[in-house]
Amino acid sequence: MELPMDKASPRSTPLSLPAGAAPAVAHQTPASLPLGPPAAASTKPLVASANPPLLPVMAPAAAPKSSSGAVEESKDAVEESNKSNVLTIGSIRSALIKQEDTIIFGLLERSQFCYNPDTYDPNASRIVGFNGSQIEFMVQQTEKMHAMMGRYKSPDEHPFFPENLLEAVVPSVEYENVLHPAAANININKRIWDVYFDDLLPRLVMEGSDGNCGSSACWDMLILQALSKRIHYGKFVAEAKFQGSPDTYTPAIINKDSDKLMDLLTFTKVEEDVRARVMSKVMTFGQVVSPEADPAIETKLKIEPELAVELYDKWIMPLTKEVQVQYLLKRLD
Amino acid sequence: MELPMDKASPRSTPLSLPAGAAPAVAHQTPASLPLGPPAAASTKPLVASANPPLLPVMAPAAAPKSSSGAVEESKDAVEESNKSNVLTIGSIRSALIKQEDTIIFGLLERSQFCYNPDTYDPNASRIVGFNGSQIEFMVQQTEKMHAMMGRYKSPDEHPFFPENLLEAVVPSVEYENVLHPAAANININKRIWDVYFDDLLPRLVMEGSDGNCGSSACWDMLILQALSKRIHYGKFVAEAKFQGSPDTYTPAIINKDSDKLMDLLTFTKVEEDVRARVMSKVMTFGQVVSPEADPAIETKLKIEPELAVELYDKWIMPLTKEVQVQYLLKRLD
Repeated sequence: MELPMDKASPRSTPLSLPAGAAPAVAHQTPASLPLGPPAAASTKPLVASANPPLLPVMAPAAAPKSSSGAVEESKDAVEESNKSNVLTIGSIRSALIKQEDTIIFGLLERSQFCYNPDTYDPNASRIVGFNGSQIEFMVQQTEKMHAMMGRYKSPDEHPFFPENLLEAVVPSVEYENVLHPAAANININKRIWDVYFDDLLPRLVMEGSDGNCGSSACWDMLILQALSKRIHYGKFVAEAKFQGSPDTYTPAIINKDSDKLMDLLTFTKVEEDVRARVMSKVMTFGQVVSPEADPAIETKLKIEPELAVELYDKWIMPLTKEVQVQYLLKRLD
Repeated sequence: MELPMDKASPRSTPLSLPAGAAPAVAHQTPASLPLGPPAAASTKPLVASANPPLLPVMAPAAAPKSSSGAVEESKDAVEESNKSNVLTIGSIRSALIKQEDTIIFGLLERSQFCYNPDTYDPNASRIVGFNGSQIEFMVQQTEKMHAMMGRYKSPDEHPFFPENLLEAVVPSVEYENVLHPAAANININKRIWDVYFDDLLPRLVMEGSDGNCGSSACWDMLILQALSKRIHYGKFVAEAKFQGSPDTYTPAIINKDSDKLMDLLTFTKVEEDVRARVMSKVMTFGQVVSPEADPAIETKLKIEPELAVELYDKWIMPLTKEVQVQYLLKRLD
């Protein structure tokens, strides 16, 4: 649940890191994500500004304090760190890779509870003065509160119930405008909501009720927010790809050729790498850890890795590309 | 962030698991936690009721749906599952072990951001109509909303700002009364708050600001809630120990001898096992996962395992025992 709502606050100093503390994004080995061949645009900044960037992809910028805490380093990355405050393909990729951890942690936590159908049944919620389910109540109320704190002013945050938001009660923040203004109207959270509750959740958890409706709703919300952030990052991915090679995309945009755009945005090898990494992560983070475990016995996992891989394969990557296509179709408006 | 607020809802059926789905708590190998020697009380139920138990320790009862998802099994545990709906030392232990995962996941997520001092500075928050810091605003507002959903009616949930709660808007839930009524007045969240912000957080994260005050506050809150739940579980631990061997504890309780109680509640070997397991978990969950990692190169970790071990050693286990002592001192009132 990354919530960069205040990253551009005038009272904070985004990315003014202490000496010796280079942003983690700049130290990350460019990994494989559906951004197209790294060579194409990996050093091309989206914005070349002398000011600290106010960009979502720079958000997870803190490297662990300790020397044993780790972010991957590479020569390229060190070079990138000298440019520091620009939005690059590498920085987007780094953010997406970190978001995988949050999504997977959320799935692992949610998986310990049953489905708990009462969480999703408007007739079971019995909340005085509210006509909906417990999960709807929790997400709506949380979004109202986070909106008061300015969360949805950030271009990488998208509410599930935009019609119910309250006005921010913190001073208004100016985010650097790296996206085309049309980006503001792209929000596919309704699709994400349906995919999560109709397709993913019933296969993640055991049927039935254990009474933990509240815990279930909390983890559902964390996963939904992480999925929403990951998928809507497609806006930044698309902008980076477009800036990297505008001539490639312009004809299809002018022709409003969605299929062609989807084709241009698809890199099979990169998607395979994502699947492999997600598999590795579930097999690592999903272990039931016990120091006295017998090495002869297979390590037990909390969820099936294939489920997370399929989530990426069937939903996260396609929906991210759908956001990219929607964005590019409006990119020249 | 387990939130068992509705586990006892009359409309849900706690622990009415589908056929073939035995509660995970009953399939967990009794692991080592500061509950005293397992032999002493591991099969003694706290309540022997034919009704489904409405107890917080039974909450994380869902075993993963798939056969590859895993809970540890043992002969003892299978026997325990036949008793099913009772609160046992084994079920408490299982809950505490799962809570470790949540705490560690939270630390790993928070560690990716800088300290972000503006999150904690009342003068920096500038929230209209609120005289406090951003973290205080977020925790207070979230607790108000969760209170409306009945969270703090559950005996294993403790608010950080009890004076600000709103009335529940869901039908009132009756929790089975396994604790002495005095338990309701034990809440050491102020200590937990101070320990987290004064001692732990500055050592977990890099100094400075990256602008992510909102994300920082979200993960802070998740960790605080997980720590609070873990530490206040001491009430159940103490009740189980007392019921397991009342003669051991009664003289010290009558004499109001806190030191003696602390001594009786301390099992060095068990605490060593906790430290070892926490170390293993951070070394597993904290890995920076990359499928193309070179096995010859040491795996990088997001945080130092020693930090989490010290958190348990210096704060979580002592504060849990402090809750136990507070509880036992009132156990015979």
